[in-house]
Amino acid sequence: MNFRLLPSCLSGLVAATLLTVAVGGVRAEQKKPAAPPAAAPPQTLDEDVEPRDLPAFLGPLPPVKAPKDNPQTDAKIELGRMLYHDPRLSGNGAVSCATCHNPALGFSDGQALSVGINGTVLGRSSPTVLNAAHYKLQFWDGRAATLEDQAKGPLLNPNEMKGDAASMVRSVAHLRGYRELFQKVFGSEPTFDRIADAIAAFERICVDLDSPFDRYARGDDTAISEQAVRGLGVFTLQGACASCHSGPNFSDSKFHNIGVNPAKDEGRYAISKDPRDKGAFKTPTLRNVALTGPFMHDGSLKTLREVIDHYVDAPRRPENKGKLSILMPEITLTEQEKDDLEAFLKTLTGDKRDPRIFQVPQLPQE
Amino acid sequence: MNFRLLPSCLSGLVAATLLTVAVGGVRAEQKKPAAPPAAAPPQTLDEDVEPRDLPAFLGPLPPVKAPKDNPQTDAKIELGRMLYHDPRLSGNGAVSCATCHNPALGFSDGQALSVGINGTVLGRSSPTVLNAAHYKLQFWDGRAATLEDQAKGPLLNPNEMKGDAASMVRSVAHLRGYRELFQKVFGSEPTFDRIADAIAAFERICVDLDSPFDRYARGDDTAISEQAVRGLGVFTLQGACASCHSGPNFSDSKFHNIGVNPAKDEGRYAISKDPRDKGAFKTPTLRNVALTGPFMHDGSLKTLREVIDHYVDAPRRPENKGKLSILMPEITLTEQEKDDLEAFLKTLTGDKRDPRIFQVPQLPQE
Repeated sequence: MNFRLLPSCLSGLVAATLLTVAVGGVRAEQKKPAAPPAAAPPQTLDEDVEPRDLPAFLGPLPPVKAPKDNPQTDAKIELGRMLYHDPRLSGNGAVSCATCHNPALGFSDGQALSVGINGTVLGRSSPTVLNAAHYKLQFWDGRAATLEDQAKGPLLNPNEMKGDAASMVRSVAHLRGYRELFQKVFGSEPTFDRIADAIAAFERICVDLDSPFDRYARGDDTAISEQAVRGLGVFTLQGACASCHSGPNFSDSKFHNIGVNPAKDEGRYAISKDPRDKGAFKTPTLRNVALTGPFMHDGSLKTLREVIDHYVDAPRRPENKGKLSILMPEITLTEQEKDDLEAFLKTLTGDKRDPRIFQVPQLPQE
Repeated sequence: MNFRLLPSCLSGLVAATLLTVAVGGVRAEQKKPAAPPAAAPPQTLDEDVEPRDLPAFLGPLPPVKAPKDNPQTDAKIELGRMLYHDPRLSGNGAVSCATCHNPALGFSDGQALSVGINGTVLGRSSPTVLNAAHYKLQFWDGRAATLEDQAKGPLLNPNEMKGDAASMVRSVAHLRGYRELFQKVFGSEPTFDRIADAIAAFERICVDLDSPFDRYARGDDTAISEQAVRGLGVFTLQGACASCHSGPNFSDSKFHNIGVNPAKDEGRYAISKDPRDKGAFKTPTLRNVALTGPFMHDGSLKTLREVIDHYVDAPRRPENKGKLSILMPEITLTEQEKDDLEAFLKTLTGDKRDPRIFQVPQLPQE
């Protein structure tokens, strides 16, 4: 019955095994007095610096792949950037993608639960668009397979942007500026599918190109603090975090019930109808986690420390016995280990991204 | 009884007189074959090019002056830019200054009537923040004298951002990032007055630094089309537009009843209690008018052509007889003149501004 969970468990075991080697290696390196005393962390590493062999497939993100039927072009990205920021796509003209996925707030909104159109408080917290291109499935419940499909959801959702596909296309096509861009990009008039294609193309540049962790993973010992290195050990071993938060995007793109109000929201179950998915939500990326609180699908935890405490406490709560994913062992962390873990999580904030994603576009007025 | 209007009338007469000379001058210049056949319009003019002597004090904007008790500093502008874009200042965490004064939409919102908090449709159209620093009074009814006072209005208005000063200050002060910036900028903890001061400082850089019209006014014959030059003639003479849309910001900062639904909204009268102000609204700047439709205080006119037609039609409507500002003569314009006027208005779109105003800030998360 738990076969479904086996691959993740196995990778967890592999992770733990690898870790013994990796953390040992790290500690050995730290003792070396021969480490180069660089005044500032090097931006590019010499080719002879060995990338670190981290457990759980942790490491830098690969380049984003666009689907064959929606290849990236600069003009399409620019059109998508405009549509992403255009509140006129919404039912009341005042809500854009950027409202809940705000570049000023880590491409989320800083709220526990997002506020959709006309002040409607939504049922879930807004996930960051940053690195969403690296998920295998989109939304907290994975109900869309691609960014193209995902983009259509909030546009049409009556509580979010409340768009109507036909009138949305009409208002876009009404503007000469957009008509010309659609012609240039797609060789066609605006359509609802093309609108989603362009937004997805923009979202594919909303990714991290570097972070302190990535530099560390590439072999730069000076990129993160000793405390953060210890935190990486907690992350991959004691905390078992890396069992699910695995891979370059720190997410297995799978669904787990971790005891966050599972009765209130059935999560993945609504899509899969598999009883084991009740209250299960997609493992969110941890990249930029310092920018995207409050946390969890319902925004019920405000700080990173509350999240860490949740993982320590939840498996021990009587009401959770036998109900959580078997990936959640009863762990014990000292306050120092929690501090270290938090320091590590803060190294996952991207510090190099495509500058276009922080530029406000100029939208056509006619 | 109409003495109050006299200075504007006089300036209108002066304008008309000057115009005869100016337009004559323009036409004479156009005939000169000796005009330099520059391939591209020069970015800076030689010092020996004479600035044009335009009527109604039309010409480039002067530098913005900040009040003595709120001098401009880069750090204050940066703090203001953050607060301007921060939806967490609002009552539901989802509305910022940038929602209705959106840099993507000419610092307005592209709507007839703006949508405030929780989908509330407001009573008036959102005026652009661009060049608001050049008004003598703020808001459509001039109820604030300074940008500092203006900024407080929407923050507290229960239909706009619905902020509560005390809790707004608390949430700003809760964030270390903001506390540090307030300390750096003001040497104090955040206060409601300081929040408004910083936003006003940001708004003072939201001004046009150049436009085709400005280059033309500085003496560059190639900066605007011949049609636009004819349109300038219509603007200042036949259309009498420049009687009120005068000065470098194309606004006299005064209040006029021009027959746009005056019964529905008493306008300036609510502030001045002067019966002559019933249905009178502040002359809006025409700079960036091509970016800031729909037009008029109630957004009732969609296009520039509808606005032009309004000025032709309104003084002739029986219900308006004797009720409009005496500055509104019964004018007659040919279709060609209307086209020319529209072409001129489009030369007022700024094409050089401080790049910071189109950058999304990164807001503090802790």
